[in-house]
Amino acid sequence: MFKKVHVFRVKPGQELLGSIAHYCREHALTSGVIISIIGSVEKARLNFLIRLPGEYESVDYPGPLEIVCAQGSVALKDDSPFIHIHIQLSGQDICRGGHLAEATVFSTAEVAIAELDYQLRRQLNSYTGLNELLD
Amino acid sequence: MFKKVHVFRVKPGQELLGSIAHYCREHALTSGVIISIIGSVEKARLNFLIRLPGEYESVDYPGPLEIVCAQGSVALKDDSPFIHIHIQLSGQDICRGGHLAEATVFSTAEVAIAELDYQLRRQLNSYTGLNELLD
Amino acid sequence: MFKKVHVFRVKPGQELLGSIAHYCREHALTSGVIISIIGSVEKARLNFLIRLPGEYESVDYPGPLEIVCAQGSVALKDDSPFIHIHIQLSGQDICRGGHLAEATVFSTAEVAIAELDYQLRRQLNSYTGLNELLD
Repeated sequence: MFKKVHVFRVKPGQELLGSIAHYCREHALTSGVIISIIGSVEKARLNFLIRLPGEYESVDYPGPLEIVCAQGSVALKDDSPFIHIHIQLSGQDICRGGHLAEATVFSTAEVAIAELDYQLRRQLNSYTGLNELLD
Repeated sequence: MFKKVHVFRVKPGQELLGSIAHYCREHALTSGVIISIIGSVEKARLNFLIRLPGEYESVDYPGPLEIVCAQGSVALKDDSPFIHIHIQLSGQDICRGGHLAEATVFSTAEVAIAELDYQLRRQLNSYTGLNELLD
Repeated sequence: MFKKVHVFRVKPGQELLGSIAHYCREHALTSGVIISIIGSVEKARLNFLIRLPGEYESVDYPGPLEIVCAQGSVALKDDSPFIHIHIQLSGQDICRGGHLAEATVFSTAEVAIAELDYQLRRQLNSYTGLNELLD
Protein backbone atom coordinates (compact mmCIF):
# COMPACT_ATOMS: atom_id res chain seq x y z
CA MET A 1 0.00 0.00 0.00
CA PHE A 2 0.91 3.64 -0.12
CA LYS A 3 2.36 4.90 3.13
CA LYS A 4 2.95 8.56 2.26
CA VAL A 5 2.23 10.92 -0.62
CA HIS A 6 4.99 13.38 -1.49
CA VAL A 7 4.02 16.51 -3.41
CA PHE A 8 6.75 19.02 -4.15
CA ARG A 9 7.81 21.65 -6.65
CA VAL A 10 11.00 21.72 -8.71
CA LYS A 11 11.92 25.31 -9.46
CA PRO A 12 13.00 27.26 -12.57
CA GLY A 13 16.47 26.39 -13.87
CA GLN A 14 16.72 23.19 -11.84
CA GLU A 15 17.39 19.87 -13.51
CA LEU A 16 14.25 17.76 -13.10
CA LEU A 17 15.56 14.21 -12.75
CA GLY A 18 18.43 15.21 -10.45
CA SER A 19 16.06 17.27 -8.30
CA ILE A 20 13.70 14.33 -7.89
CA ALA A 21 16.64 12.06 -7.01
CA HIS A 22 17.81 14.66 -4.46
CA TYR A 23 14.33 14.85 -2.91
CA CYS A 24 14.18 11.04 -2.66
CA ARG A 25 17.56 10.87 -0.92
CA GLU A 26 16.63 13.66 1.52
CA HIS A 27 13.35 11.90 2.39
CA ALA A 28 14.71 8.32 2.35
CA LEU A 29 12.19 7.54 -0.36
CA THR A 30 13.38 4.34 -2.04
CA SER A 31 10.13 2.79 -3.26
CA GLY A 32 7.23 4.55 -4.92
CA VAL A 33 5.08 5.27 -7.94
CA ILE A 34 5.36 8.60 -9.77
CA ILE A 35 1.72 9.55 -10.27
CA SER A 36 1.91 13.13 -11.55
CA ILE A 37 4.39 15.63 -12.94
CA ILE A 38 3.10 18.74 -14.68
CA GLY A 39 4.76 22.05 -15.49
CA SER A 40 7.09 23.20 -18.25
CA VAL A 41 10.68 22.71 -19.37
CA GLU A 42 13.23 25.04 -20.89
CA LYS A 43 14.84 22.07 -22.64
CA ALA A 44 14.84 18.30 -22.33
CA ARG A 45 16.63 15.17 -23.51
CA LEU A 46 14.59 12.04 -24.15
CA ASN A 47 15.83 8.54 -24.90
CA PHE A 48 14.14 6.20 -27.37
CA LEU A 49 14.82 2.46 -27.32
CA ILE A 50 15.75 1.32 -30.83
CA ARG A 51 17.02 -2.23 -30.55
CA LEU A 52 17.53 -4.85 -27.87
CA PRO A 53 19.65 -5.30 -25.88
CA GLY A 54 19.60 -1.75 -24.61
CA GLU A 55 20.37 0.32 -27.70
CA TYR A 56 18.76 3.74 -27.60
CA GLU A 57 19.00 7.14 -29.24
CA SER A 58 18.86 10.47 -27.40
CA VAL A 59 17.11 13.52 -28.78
CA ASP A 60 17.37 17.05 -27.41
CA TYR A 61 14.22 19.16 -27.47
CA PRO A 62 14.45 22.94 -27.09
CA GLY A 63 11.65 24.53 -25.09
CA PRO A 64 9.65 26.01 -23.75
CA LEU A 65 7.50 22.89 -23.76
CA GLU A 66 4.70 21.87 -21.44
CA ILE A 67 5.26 18.86 -19.20
CA VAL A 68 1.93 17.20 -19.94
CA CYS A 69 2.41 14.23 -17.63
CA ALA A 70 4.91 11.68 -16.41
CA GLN A 71 4.83 8.24 -14.85
CA GLY A 72 7.30 5.77 -13.45
CA SER A 73 8.80 4.56 -10.23
CA VAL A 74 11.45 4.85 -7.55
CA ALA A 75 13.16 1.53 -6.80
CA LEU A 76 16.44 0.11 -5.53
CA LYS A 77 19.09 -1.41 -7.76
CA ASP A 78 21.91 -2.99 -5.74
CA ASP A 79 20.79 -0.89 -2.77
CA SER A 80 21.06 2.38 -4.72
CA PRO A 81 17.98 4.44 -5.60
CA PHE A 82 16.95 4.11 -9.23
CA ILE A 83 14.39 6.49 -10.68
CA HIS A 84 12.72 5.56 -13.95
CA ILE A 85 10.50 8.21 -15.54
CA HIS A 86 8.77 8.49 -18.90
CA ILE A 87 7.57 11.99 -19.65
CA GLN A 88 5.26 13.58 -22.22
CA LEU A 89 6.20 17.01 -23.59
CA SER A 90 4.21 19.23 -25.91
CA GLY A 91 4.22 22.64 -27.53
CA GLN A 92 1.90 24.02 -30.18
CA ASP A 93 4.07 22.57 -32.94
CA ILE A 94 5.57 19.41 -31.51
CA CYS A 95 4.56 16.66 -29.12
CA ARG A 96 6.92 13.89 -28.04
CA GLY A 97 7.36 11.61 -25.07
CA GLY A 98 9.98 9.15 -23.95
CA HIS A 99 12.47 8.10 -21.30
CA LEU A 100 13.51 11.18 -19.31
CA ALA A 101 17.29 11.55 -19.54
CA GLU A 102 17.39 15.16 -18.31
CA ALA A 103 15.33 18.34 -18.40
CA THR A 104 15.69 21.90 -17.17
CA VAL A 105 12.58 23.32 -15.52
CA PHE A 106 11.11 26.46 -17.10
CA SER A 107 8.32 27.73 -14.80
CA THR A 108 7.73 24.80 -12.47
CA ALA A 109 7.46 21.03 -12.18
CA GLU A 110 4.80 19.86 -9.74
CA VAL A 111 5.75 16.33 -8.72
CA ALA A 112 3.62 13.77 -6.86
CA ILE A 113 5.15 10.48 -5.73
CA ALA A 114 3.11 7.89 -3.82
CA GLU A 115 5.50 6.02 -1.53
CA LEU A 116 5.03 2.25 -1.16
CA ASP A 117 5.23 0.23 2.05
CA TYR A 118 7.09 -2.54 0.21
CA GLN A 119 10.37 -2.32 -1.66
CA LEU A 120 10.52 -2.19 -5.47
CA ARG A 121 13.76 -3.57 -6.86
CA ARG A 122 15.53 -3.64 -10.22
CA GLN A 123 18.15 -5.91 -11.69
CA LEU A 124 20.10 -5.89 -14.93
CA ASN A 125 18.33 -8.14 -17.42
CA SER A 126 20.52 -9.79 -20.03
CA TYR A 127 17.76 -10.03 -22.66
CA THR A 128 16.77 -6.36 -22.63
CA GLY A 129 20.14 -5.04 -21.48
CA LEU A 130 18.24 -2.79 -19.08
CA ASN A 131 17.58 -2.63 -15.36
CA GLU A 132 14.16 -4.27 -15.12
CA LEU A 133 11.66 -4.39 -12.27
CA LEU A 134 11.72 -7.62 -10.30
CA ASP A 135 8.45 -9.39 -9.44
CA MET B 1 -1.63 10.27 2.71
CA PHE B 2 -4.67 9.70 0.58
CA LYS B 3 -7.88 9.74 2.58
CA LYS B 4 -10.41 9.04 -0.16
CA VAL B 5 -10.40 8.19 -3.85
CA HIS B 6 -13.03 9.90 -5.99
CA VAL B 7 -13.94 8.29 -9.30
CA PHE B 8 -16.67 9.93 -11.35
CA ARG B 9 -17.85 10.46 -14.90
CA VAL B 10 -18.30 13.77 -16.71
CA LYS B 11 -21.02 13.38 -19.32
CA PRO B 12 -21.41 14.33 -23.01
CA GLY B 13 -21.68 18.07 -23.67
CA GLN B 14 -20.43 19.05 -20.22
CA GLU B 15 -17.42 21.32 -19.80
CA LEU B 16 -14.67 19.23 -18.24
CA LEU B 17 -12.79 21.70 -16.02
CA GLY B 18 -15.98 23.31 -14.71
CA SER B 19 -17.50 19.91 -14.01
CA ILE B 20 -14.46 18.84 -12.00
CA ALA B 21 -14.56 22.12 -10.06
CA HIS B 22 -18.27 21.57 -9.39
CA TYR B 23 -17.62 18.02 -8.14
CA CYS B 24 -14.85 19.27 -5.83
CA ARG B 25 -17.12 21.97 -4.34
CA GLU B 26 -19.98 19.48 -3.82
CA HIS B 27 -17.64 17.04 -2.07
CA ALA B 28 -15.57 19.63 -0.17
CA LEU B 29 -12.51 18.30 -1.97
CA THR B 30 -9.84 21.00 -1.62
CA SER B 31 -6.61 18.98 -1.74
CA GLY B 32 -5.78 16.10 -4.03
CA VAL B 33 -3.86 14.62 -6.91
CA ILE B 34 -5.53 14.02 -10.27
CA ILE B 35 -4.35 10.54 -11.15
CA SER B 36 -6.44 9.62 -14.20
CA ILE B 37 -8.73 11.21 -16.78
CA ILE B 38 -9.58 9.26 -19.92
CA GLY B 39 -12.38 9.66 -22.45
CA SER B 40 -12.91 11.95 -25.42
CA VAL B 41 -13.60 15.60 -26.16
CA GLU B 42 -15.73 17.34 -28.75
CA LYS B 43 -13.38 20.35 -28.60
CA ALA B 44 -10.73 21.71 -26.26
CA ARG B 45 -8.63 24.79 -25.56
CA LEU B 46 -5.08 24.31 -24.32
CA ASN B 47 -2.66 26.94 -23.04
CA PHE B 48 1.06 26.91 -23.79
CA LEU B 49 3.48 28.95 -21.71
CA ILE B 50 5.66 31.05 -24.03
CA ARG B 51 7.58 33.49 -21.87
CA LEU B 52 7.96 34.32 -18.20
CA PRO B 53 6.36 35.90 -16.34
CA GLY B 54 3.11 34.21 -17.22
CA GLU B 55 2.77 34.81 -20.95
CA TYR B 56 0.91 32.04 -22.71
CA GLU B 57 -0.91 31.33 -25.96
CA SER B 58 -4.23 29.51 -26.26
CA VAL B 59 -5.01 27.09 -29.05
CA ASP B 60 -8.43 25.64 -29.86
CA TYR B 61 -8.55 22.04 -31.02
CA PRO B 62 -11.63 20.70 -32.77
CA GLY B 63 -12.53 17.12 -31.94
CA PRO B 64 -13.41 14.46 -31.59
CA LEU B 65 -10.13 13.74 -29.86
CA GLU B 66 -9.26 11.09 -27.30
CA ILE B 67 -8.39 12.21 -23.79
CA VAL B 68 -5.30 10.04 -23.44
CA CYS B 69 -4.46 11.07 -19.90
CA ALA B 70 -4.30 14.01 -17.51
CA GLN B 71 -2.50 14.89 -14.30
CA GLY B 72 -2.47 17.73 -11.83
CA SER B 73 -3.85 18.75 -8.49
CA VAL B 74 -6.59 20.37 -6.46
CA ALA B 75 -5.28 23.00 -4.04
CA LEU B 76 -6.35 26.18 -2.26
CA LYS B 77 -5.31 29.65 -3.33
CA ASP B 78 -6.44 32.32 -0.84
CA ASP B 79 -8.96 29.80 0.52
CA SER B 80 -10.54 29.23 -2.91
CA PRO B 81 -10.22 25.89 -4.72
CA PHE B 82 -7.71 25.98 -7.56
CA ILE B 83 -7.59 23.11 -10.03
CA HIS B 84 -4.52 22.74 -12.22
CA ILE B 85 -4.68 20.12 -14.98
CA HIS B 86 -2.44 19.25 -17.89
CA ILE B 87 -4.11 17.01 -20.43
CA GLN B 88 -2.99 14.93 -23.40
CA LEU B 89 -5.26 14.78 -26.45
CA SER B 90 -4.86 12.72 -29.58
CA GLY B 91 -6.58 11.80 -32.81
CA GLN B 92 -5.25 9.82 -35.75
CA ASP B 93 -3.77 12.95 -37.29
CA ILE B 94 -2.81 15.17 -34.37
CA CYS B 95 -1.50 14.77 -30.85
CA ARG B 96 -1.05 17.68 -28.47
CA GLY B 97 -1.05 18.24 -24.74
CA GLY B 98 -0.96 21.28 -22.49
CA HIS B 99 -2.62 23.26 -19.75
CA LEU B 100 -6.36 22.54 -19.80
CA ALA B 101 -8.23 25.82 -20.25
CA GLU B 102 -11.56 24.23 -21.21
CA ALA B 103 -12.94 21.21 -23.01
CA THR B 104 -16.34 19.87 -23.95
CA VAL B 105 -16.83 16.17 -23.30
CA PHE B 106 -17.71 14.01 -26.32
CA SER B 107 -18.54 10.49 -25.05
CA THR B 108 -17.26 10.55 -21.48
CA ALA B 109 -14.49 11.68 -19.17
CA GLU B 110 -13.64 9.19 -16.44
CA VAL B 111 -11.96 11.16 -13.67
CA ALA B 112 -10.02 9.80 -10.67
CA ILE B 113 -8.83 12.18 -7.94
CA ALA B 114 -6.95 10.89 -4.88
CA GLU B 115 -7.79 13.22 -1.98
CA LEU B 116 -4.97 14.14 0.41
CA ASP B 117 -5.16 14.34 4.20
CA TYR B 118 -3.04 17.51 4.16
CA GLN B 119 -3.73 20.79 2.42
CA LEU B 120 -2.00 21.75 -0.84
CA ARG B 121 -1.76 25.53 -1.29
CA ARG B 122 -0.84 27.91 -4.09
CA GLN B 123 0.40 31.48 -4.12
CA LEU B 124 1.11 33.97 -6.88
CA ASN B 125 4.81 33.84 -7.67
CA SER B 126 6.37 37.05 -8.98
CA TYR B 127 9.10 35.29 -10.99
CA THR B 128 6.82 32.99 -12.98
CA GLY B 129 3.74 35.22 -12.80
CA LEU B 130 1.74 32.08 -12.01
CA ASN B 131 0.06 30.55 -8.97
CA GLU B 132 2.69 28.10 -7.81
CA LEU B 133 2.48 25.21 -5.33
CA LEU B 134 3.87 26.07 -1.89
CA ASP B 135 6.21 23.63 -0.15
CA MET C 1 -9.85 4.24 -0.65
CA PHE C 2 -7.01 2.22 -2.06
CA LYS C 3 -6.60 -1.12 -0.38
CA LYS C 4 -3.56 -2.48 -2.25
CA VAL C 5 -1.08 -1.27 -4.85
CA HIS C 6 -0.11 -3.79 -7.52
CA VAL C 7 3.16 -3.21 -9.37
CA PHE C 8 4.19 -5.79 -11.95
CA ARG C 9 6.09 -6.21 -15.19
CA VAL C 10 4.75 -7.46 -18.51
CA LYS C 11 7.56 -9.13 -20.43
CA PRO C 12 8.86 -8.98 -24.02
CA GLY C 13 6.55 -10.48 -26.63
CA GLN C 14 3.54 -10.57 -24.31
CA GLU C 15 0.29 -8.84 -25.26
CA LEU C 16 -0.16 -5.94 -22.85
CA LEU C 17 -3.95 -5.74 -22.38
CA GLY C 18 -4.38 -9.51 -22.12
CA SER C 19 -1.50 -9.74 -19.63
CA ILE C 20 -3.08 -7.08 -17.42
CA ALA C 21 -6.44 -8.87 -17.62
CA HIS C 22 -4.70 -12.14 -16.69
CA TYR C 23 -2.98 -10.48 -13.71
CA CYS C 24 -6.31 -9.04 -12.52
CA ARG C 25 -8.02 -12.46 -12.72
CA GLU C 26 -5.16 -14.17 -10.87
CA HIS C 27 -5.27 -11.56 -8.11
CA ALA C 28 -9.09 -11.16 -7.96
CA LEU C 29 -8.58 -7.49 -8.79
CA THR C 30 -11.95 -6.22 -10.04
CA SER C 31 -11.84 -2.54 -9.08
CA GLY C 32 -8.94 -0.16 -9.42
CA VAL C 33 -7.27 2.81 -11.04
CA ILE C 34 -4.40 2.33 -13.48
CA ILE C 35 -1.90 4.93 -12.33
CA SER C 36 1.24 4.13 -14.33
CA ILE C 37 2.37 2.08 -17.32
CA ILE C 38 5.77 2.81 -18.86
CA GLY C 39 7.98 0.75 -21.14
CA SER C 40 8.01 0.09 -24.87
CA VAL C 41 5.97 -1.75 -27.48
CA GLU C 42 6.94 -3.72 -30.57
CA LYS C 43 3.58 -2.79 -32.13
CA ALA C 44 0.20 -1.51 -30.99
CA ARG C 45 -3.37 -1.00 -32.12
CA LEU C 46 -5.23 2.09 -30.89
CA ASN C 47 -8.90 2.93 -31.31
CA PHE C 48 -10.18 6.44 -31.99
CA LEU C 49 -13.83 7.33 -31.41
CA ILE C 50 -15.21 9.02 -34.53
CA ARG C 51 -18.97 9.28 -34.10
CA LEU C 52 -21.57 8.44 -31.50
CA PRO C 53 -22.95 5.96 -30.81
CA GLY C 54 -19.77 3.95 -30.54
CA GLU C 55 -18.23 4.26 -33.99
CA TYR C 56 -14.45 4.08 -33.92
CA GLU C 57 -11.49 3.50 -36.20
CA SER C 58 -8.50 1.31 -35.38
CA VAL C 59 -4.96 2.20 -36.37
CA ASP C 60 -1.94 -0.10 -36.18
CA TYR C 61 1.34 1.45 -35.17
CA PRO C 62 4.59 -0.39 -35.85
CA GLY C 63 7.26 -0.01 -33.16
CA PRO C 64 9.45 0.14 -31.41
CA LEU C 65 7.63 2.95 -29.60
CA GLU C 66 7.95 4.13 -26.03
CA ILE C 67 4.97 3.65 -23.73
CA VAL C 68 5.02 7.16 -22.30
CA CYS C 69 2.10 6.69 -19.92
CA ALA C 70 -1.34 5.13 -19.54
CA GLN C 71 -4.39 5.66 -17.38
CA GLY C 72 -7.74 4.01 -16.88
CA SER C 73 -9.54 1.58 -14.64
CA VAL C 74 -10.53 -1.95 -13.78
CA ALA C 75 -14.27 -2.36 -13.24
CA LEU C 76 -17.04 -4.95 -13.48
CA LYS C 77 -19.54 -5.10 -16.31
CA ASP C 78 -22.26 -7.71 -15.67
CA ASP C 79 -19.93 -9.31 -13.12
CA SER C 80 -17.10 -9.69 -15.64
CA PRO C 81 -13.86 -7.71 -15.31
CA PHE C 82 -13.64 -4.82 -17.76
CA ILE C 83 -10.32 -3.05 -18.25
CA HIS C 84 -10.35 0.35 -19.93
CA ILE C 85 -6.95 1.86 -20.78
CA HIS C 86 -5.87 4.87 -22.80
CA ILE C 87 -2.19 4.84 -23.65
CA GLN C 88 0.32 7.34 -25.00
CA LEU C 89 2.98 6.08 -27.42
CA SER C 90 5.90 7.97 -28.91
CA GLY C 91 8.95 7.54 -31.07
CA GLN C 92 11.27 10.19 -32.45
CA ASP C 93 9.06 10.67 -35.48
CA ILE C 94 5.52 9.99 -34.29
CA CYS C 95 3.50 10.48 -31.15
CA ARG C 96 -0.07 9.20 -30.76
CA GLY C 97 -2.34 8.11 -27.97
CA GLY C 98 -5.76 6.51 -27.76
CA HIS C 99 -7.84 3.61 -26.54
CA LEU C 100 -5.60 0.56 -26.13
CA ALA C 101 -6.95 -2.26 -28.29
CA GLU C 102 -3.80 -4.40 -28.14
CA ALA C 103 -0.04 -4.04 -27.95
CA THR C 104 2.95 -6.35 -27.94
CA VAL C 105 5.59 -5.51 -25.35
CA PHE C 106 9.09 -4.77 -26.68
CA SER C 107 11.44 -4.45 -23.67
CA THR C 108 9.04 -4.18 -20.75
CA ALA C 109 5.81 -2.67 -19.49
CA GLU C 110 5.91 -1.61 -15.84
CA VAL C 111 2.31 -1.50 -14.64
CA ALA C 112 0.96 0.03 -11.42
CA ILE C 113 -2.70 -0.46 -10.47
CA ALA C 114 -4.12 1.00 -7.25
CA GLU C 115 -6.92 -1.33 -6.09
CA LEU C 116 -10.07 0.27 -4.65
CA ASP C 117 -12.03 -0.86 -1.60
CA TYR C 118 -15.30 -0.17 -3.42
CA GLN C 119 -16.55 -1.65 -6.66
CA LEU C 120 -16.42 0.29 -9.94
CA ARG C 121 -19.10 -0.83 -12.38
CA ARG C 122 -19.88 -0.26 -16.06
CA GLN C 123 -23.07 -0.53 -18.05
CA LEU C 124 -23.87 -0.20 -21.74
CA ASN C 125 -25.03 3.36 -22.39
CA SER C 126 -27.45 3.81 -25.28
CA TYR C 127 -26.39 7.40 -26.05
CA THR C 128 -22.66 6.71 -26.39
CA GLY C 129 -23.03 3.06 -27.42
CA LEU C 130 -20.18 2.29 -25.00
CA ASN C 131 -19.82 0.67 -21.60
CA GLU C 132 -19.75 3.71 -19.32
CA LEU C 133 -18.78 4.02 -15.67
CA LEU C 134 -21.73 4.14 -13.29
CA ASP C 135 -21.86 6.74 -10.53
